Order: sequence, then structure tokens, then C-alpha cells
Amino acid sequence: MYRLVLIRHGESEWNKENRFTGWTDVDLSENGVNEAHEAGKRMKKEGFNFKYAYTSYLKRAIKTLNIALEEMNLLWIPTEKSWCLNEKHYGTLQGLNKKETTEKYGEAQVKLWRRSFDVRPPKLEESDERHPINDIRYKQIDNPMAHPATEALCDTIDRILPYWKESILPNIKKYKEVIIAAHGNSLRAIVQYLKNIDNEAIIDTNIPTGIPYVFEFDDNMNLIKDYYLADEETLKKLMDAVANQGKK
Amino acid sequence: MYRLVLIRHGESEWNKENRFTGWTDVDLSENGVNEAHEAGKRMKKEGFNFKYAYTSYLKRAIKTLNIALEEMNLLWIPTEKSWCLNEKHYGTLQGLNKKETTEKYGEAQVKLWRRSFDVRPPKLEESDERHPINDIRYKQIDNPMAHPATEALCDTIDRILPYWKESILPNIKKYKEVIIAAHGNSLRAIVQYLKNIDNEAIIDTNIPTGIPYVFEFDDNMNLIKDYYLADEETLKKLMDAVANQGKK
Repeated sequence: MYRLVLIRHGESEWNKENRFTGWTDVDLSENGVNEAHEAGKRMKKEGFNFKYAYTSYLKRAIKTLNIALEEMNLLWIPTEKSWCLNEKHYGTLQGLNKKETTEKYGEAQVKLWRRSFDVRPPKLEESDERHPINDIRYKQIDNPMAHPATEALCDTIDRILPYWKESILPNIKKYKEVIIAAHGNSLRAIVQYLKNIDNEAIIDTNIPTGIPYVFEFDDNMNLIKDYYLADEETLKKLMDAVANQGKK
Repeated sequence: MYRLVLIRHGESEWNKENRFTGWTDVDLSENGVNEAHEAGKRMKKEGFNFKYAYTSYLKRAIKTLNIALEEMNLLWIPTEKSWCLNEKHYGTLQGLNKKETTEKYGEAQVKLWRRSFDVRPPKLEESDERHPINDIRYKQIDNPMAHPATEALCDTIDRILPYWKESILPNIKKYKEVIIAAHGNSLRAIVQYLKNIDNEAIIDTNIPTGIPYVFEFDDNMNLIKDYYLADEETLKKLMDAVANQGKK
């Protein structure tokens, strides 16, 4: 059997302030640090023993991974960081308050920008310091997908799936137990692919922060089951909270 | 120009208790955490901008690296962990107090065990839980050098030099600015090699915790100069403290 665990980073400073983050490299909040510790303890208690880890180029995901692995006494396992696992790029929305944006553009538009398959927030200019071309970690990468001015989920999927096929999937086969610490939308992209969710239904898929999401595969890498390491009630509360961030 | 920075992990719980550590996976002390933050701030201020990082399989080195890289806003760079960079294995001395060991065996013998080129502490039995063969992270490795029952510096060198040649040196050439966070003796092995120190003189080389040690190379990878990022007085105090740990 093969096991993959997806974990969305713990609460960030901007989750707390209800601002669009995207590729902005904000830190975990104190609560987010605690969530990461709890996730690590939970995975340890449930007997997970990862042999390989993935994370993004963003510190809220990297730190969530490091904290959880330390709780599991697994800080030593190989860890691969990739921009492909970064959050969806939110274009000019990055930095704006979600409630204020909703008041300005309406709930329906904001939900499309946040969760739809193919509606992109407005593009950043290349002169904007928030554009990835102006960040040392991306400008060196010879791939236009590493320099998005904005993204819809479909764009995030377009950069994650090749990476899934070339790196992640072979490593799940090789190492049998793998963890990916990443972001709400980069993980939604993987979940849509693994669970074959259609482009309309994906809009209502929300991933809570800091809760390990387990995928089990058979020897042919067919998905057998998927479940969160949390009780139903906690989970419902957390998912509703994520869904409601863009409401008035 | 090429730059390599060596940094010995900050003070560990067992440095504080003056115990032989070796491959025992003890944590940083509070002071050690502070040293790592200070090292990161210092390297940032001096304009270092690493593109690639190395560390060992031991958490005191991994955490020192992570803390320093976070201070430098470089948590995202690729990081390779290897058992080859682990501390020298101290055999049956691991866990013993250095002063008590000195009282029992004498200062001269302890200095040989700690700092000589080729005198090994007594061997661990394979049944001893401290033997690497009983640790999940080493027993999976198909290389007898990953399962030492004890080591002298010459053994540590024997496992580091192939790794230096196959991985570290090519990556210094490729990335130009590289950091290695490791241990007193694994770094002494590298320093002996880089500075061509003879097997007698190496006994008096001590590397203080948490101080970045910079090596600059020309285009042909000849060593131009090496220096610590610390003032003379601080450095002298720290080196004497390391040298004196095994005295009565």
C-alpha cells in the first residue's frame, strides 16, 4: 500500500487578517505554528513514517512541514521544495482584504476568483514588485509558468500536474509514504486530479489549514480511500470557516 | 569567485551538559537557538546569498540551518541532508560526561579520543541501541560507513571526502555560494582537507559553535582566504571554551 498525506500550512498572518496571500511570502501566525505541532503529533500517533517530503517555496508551508516533521522525529528525511507547489497566484488581489474586496465586487465575483476553475483575478503589471519576475527565487527559473501575473485554478493545475507526474508520483512509488505541505489551492489542484472531481464541483471543495489529509493507494496506484485525520465536527467547522472567508 | 560557509550547529543540550554526543540526536539548547538566529543575521548583514545548502541527519545541525536560512529569507533554497556530514561517532563514550571521563581516563587519553587523527574511542556492540544499525535512518543505507561502531577523525574524513567530491564540490561550482551546517568534527575533516593541515596539527584545530566560517575560492577552486564572521576576541573565547571541555 502507498500513502500520501496532503497538509495545508497552518494559519498565516494574512489568513488571520483575512487578506489574499497567493505568492506573498507571509509567516505563520502563532496559531498556525500550534496547528503544525498538533498535526505532527497526530500523524506520529497514527503511525505515519514518511520517507520523503515535498513543500513549496513559501515559508508558511516550509515551516509547517519542518515543525510537523520535527514532532515526528523525521526532520532528517529528504525534502524537495518547488515553486510548482506554490499557492495559486492571486494577481492584483494579493494583499487586499477579502471582506473589503467582497464589498466592492460582490460575493459571486469573489467566489469565482477564489474557487472557480478558470476565472482569473486581474493581472499584475511586470513593473509591480509583487510580480514573480521581480523575485530572485522565480526570475532565475527558465519556465514562463514560474512567472504568473495571475492564475485561475486551471493554471495552477497546469504547473502542478507535470511536476506530479515527473517527480511526486515516482517518489510515492519509490518511498511508499510521502507528505506534501502546501497551500489551499495547490492542494485543491491535486485533490481534483486524484478524486477526478469535475470543473464545476471543485468550486465547493475547501481544504482546512493544518489537518492532515490522507490518500491511500493500492499496488497499481489506484486510489482506495481518502480521509482527514480529524473528527467530523472539527472538520465541518474548519471547512465552513474557509468557505465563509469571502462572505460579507 | 566561489564562497563556502561552514557553520557548526549552535550549542546543544549535551554541549551544555558537557556530554559526548556523536550521533546521538539531541536538540539545540535555548542558547543554541539564539546562536543560530545571530549567525543568520550576521550572514545576511554581510551580504551572503546562498543558492544551495547542506546539513547532516542530526536535528541540531538541521535546525541551525533552518533558523539561519529563515533569518536570511532563504528557507526556500534546495537543502540536501546526508549522514556523511554527521558528527564523528564517539562509540561507547556517547552519553558520558566529558569531565567524568577525563577523571577516569586522564586528560591525554580524552584529548586523543576527541581530537586526534586516528585514535578511536571504544567500539559499540551491534546489540547496543546506540549502534547506527539499530536506527531506522541508517540501517536502510547500503554502505558500511553509515554504520560505524566508533570513529576517529580519519574515519570521518573517509566518509566525507567522497561526498565532498561527488556532491558538494560540483554544487559549489554550479551554485557559487553554498552553506554547510554540520558538526565540530565533520567540519574539522573538511577544514583539514581544504587547508591541507597535517595529521599532527589538526589536533589543535577547534571550531566554535554558531560562528560562520567563510572559505573563498578563485575560478580554479584554489582557496584564496578563510575567515570567521566574528571579532578576534569573541572567537578566541569560543575556541578556548571548546578546547577546554575535556580538561579537569
